[in-house]
Amino acid sequence: LSPEIIFDPYASLYSEATGRGLPFIGGLPPESLVAVMDSVLSGGINEAFQYCETEGRDALKSQLVKVMAQEGLDSEPEHILVTTGSQQALDLLARTFLDPGDIVLTEGPTYVGALAAFRPALPRIITVPLDDLGIRTDVLRELLERPEIDPKFIYVVPNFQNPAGVTMNSRRRRELLDLAVEHDLLILEDNPYGLLRFEGEPLPPLKASDPRRVIYIGTLSKIVSPGIRVGWVFAPDPIIERLSTLKQSADLCSSSLNQMFAEEYLRRGLYEKNLVNLRDIYRSRRDVMLKSLEKHFPAEAHWTNPQGGLFIWVTLPEYLDSAKMLPMAIDRKVAFVPGSAFYPDGSGANRIRLNFSFPPEEKIAWGIETLGKVVRKEMDLYRSLGLDNP
Amino acid sequence: LSPEIIFDPYASLYSEATGRGLPFIGGLPPESLVAVMDSVLSGGINEAFQYCETEGRDALKSQLVKVMAQEGLDSEPEHILVTTGSQQALDLLARTFLDPGDIVLTEGPTYVGALAAFRPALPRIITVPLDDLGIRTDVLRELLERPEIDPKFIYVVPNFQNPAGVTMNSRRRRELLDLAVEHDLLILEDNPYGLLRFEGEPLPPLKASDPRRVIYIGTLSKIVSPGIRVGWVFAPDPIIERLSTLKQSADLCSSSLNQMFAEEYLRRGLYEKNLVNLRDIYRSRRDVMLKSLEKHFPAEAHWTNPQGGLFIWVTLPEYLDSAKMLPMAIDRKVAFVPGSAFYPDGSGANRIRLNFSFPPEEKIAWGIETLGKVVRKEMDLYRSLGLDNP
Repeated sequence: LSPEIIFDPYASLYSEATGRGLPFIGGLPPESLVAVMDSVLSGGINEAFQYCETEGRDALKSQLVKVMAQEGLDSEPEHILVTTGSQQALDLLARTFLDPGDIVLTEGPTYVGALAAFRPALPRIITVPLDDLGIRTDVLRELLERPEIDPKFIYVVPNFQNPAGVTMNSRRRRELLDLAVEHDLLILEDNPYGLLRFEGEPLPPLKASDPRRVIYIGTLSKIVSPGIRVGWVFAPDPIIERLSTLKQSADLCSSSLNQMFAEEYLRRGLYEKNLVNLRDIYRSRRDVMLKSLEKHFPAEAHWTNPQGGLFIWVTLPEYLDSAKMLPMAIDRKVAFVPGSAFYPDGSGANRIRLNFSFPPEEKIAWGIETLGKVVRKEMDLYRSLGLDNP
Repeated sequence: LSPEIIFDPYASLYSEATGRGLPFIGGLPPESLVAVMDSVLSGGINEAFQYCETEGRDALKSQLVKVMAQEGLDSEPEHILVTTGSQQALDLLARTFLDPGDIVLTEGPTYVGALAAFRPALPRIITVPLDDLGIRTDVLRELLERPEIDPKFIYVVPNFQNPAGVTMNSRRRRELLDLAVEHDLLILEDNPYGLLRFEGEPLPPLKASDPRRVIYIGTLSKIVSPGIRVGWVFAPDPIIERLSTLKQSADLCSSSLNQMFAEEYLRRGLYEKNLVNLRDIYRSRRDVMLKSLEKHFPAEAHWTNPQGGLFIWVTLPEYLDSAKMLPMAIDRKVAFVPGSAFYPDGSGANRIRLNFSFPPEEKIAWGIETLGKVVRKEMDLYRSLGLDNP
């Protein structure tokens, strides 16, 4: 059973749902990729096929400094650790900071890969709800005032959040930073999508306002390629050192070949050209998805309106369970990720994450229409059984 | 301070000693590498730059089956997990099997990267001594008979052990396997160098004799390239499943680009051609190193005589501390790894690991001569102070 439309580039996390590997993201121009690789191999074949420093190649880190500058963030190569994708950054951070029973705060919903990275350390994960303006700092404030709540860190995705698509506005950023100072709270800021803004004004990363209290996590997966597994952490010295020691035991170093490829790709400015492309493509696809949702989803449903990134988060009537609807959707060749995956306690059953970055526009329109039918059919069933108001 | 001769390809593990990155291993013909990459990029650019399955690409796993067949081991793609270098395999296995205080057995000395991978789980690591025939199964038997010794697993490198260079003979293999059955012991068999045999008859992996009780760890680092970070685990189903779940949280998947490169490199049979080359080069370098040791090292020193792999393990008089001699050696532009790195308790101070795979023959001769002078000078100093018989 292989759906034609997968509203999710992380579908491998849900291979039971989709039955196949991962779809394509974005529009990398193939000629440039080949030219970049040719240049890497003609220049430094010995280096490319050898081990490199655990911390990552200096030449790559200098390029990552420029990427962060584009986000409005000043950084230094020596405070960067290159990781095997940002997933490894999350894993190393969890292993460095967490002991069983420790409290971790996350947005609710939150990135499923972060939950997966935190869970092996057996922490107690408490979620702080999101609204359209980002994390609910009022709820966070109340939570932090409870004496038994002494979190090791709070994990947030301020831009085009995964899965909700919402962006923390500047007031919420300020409030979060103030609360962090007041309660001596460490912030993990994960920013995979910041450069994928297709409307509105970019906001500076949290890290720019409080370099000491914020650990910044970046990745090239959404702006260059996920297949090269290049992510990074930008953090104060002692943290980089601890993470680096752990990385050495985790995989010795990240691939030299891939790092050199990334270096050259960034050095040539190709990702900036590609970003212009990607923003156009993603904006159009978001627009089609929003229009299709308006047209084909029931009035009882509502959804977020992202200014960038990849995701729209749909809330269905409370009595529905999106995980139960998934097989029906897949029967009709459409896949999504059920909302419960994005909460540590499995709540959020009436929500779904849609990803508009992969399918072409006509597929999106058709896929949302199909999904709308599945939702309506399920609602009719519940109503006919009197289960729509439990 | 940058030594000219580094008798160690893992020098980054000891950057404090060497002050620079990692040297070259082996002799990969550059034209083939470029041709392989061209073919990967012309064939499947979308796949290469995308995520892939956490378990690894099927096409790569089919090639790894053939590599294992060369070692005398029957395997199936579905029982293989591709890892980000074999270091990740060690890390995932440690995290899957070990809780704080658990007992792990290793050879003494043992691979420093395995110690690094096991340590974060806070196990109690007990070493079983090696001799020229491999692990001392008589000592292991006595150890296992003690009721308080209930190890989670034993970790061994049967071929051209790192750091000792010795190979477990067939009798010791049989005895280890018998003891494993008798005491229900899980064996982690790490085999990075098996195909680098330059004399004598290859012995089948332990895994071939007891597929259920042995977890086999392989890597392409020594036969293709370490810079692509491709390793694997071949193990029974339930173990592969658990490791795979953990790998998903550790780095989602290994680089698709690197996996496709490895696939094509193996498919073309290039590694077999390269192995013929490598064996010749390494054999000559070993011969030069052995001859130089004979000529320049004091009569009180002795060393192993490896039939393959990369390492010679030198035992100096007991009163010497090789870590103290390292700065003197580096002053003279020669680096090695002090023996204490290879024991969990820091014993082995009078030993050193030498790696003959990297420097050309004339450098080896010069380097060993230089090192011999350092050793003699240190011995003279101890004798003059009457510290040579403590």
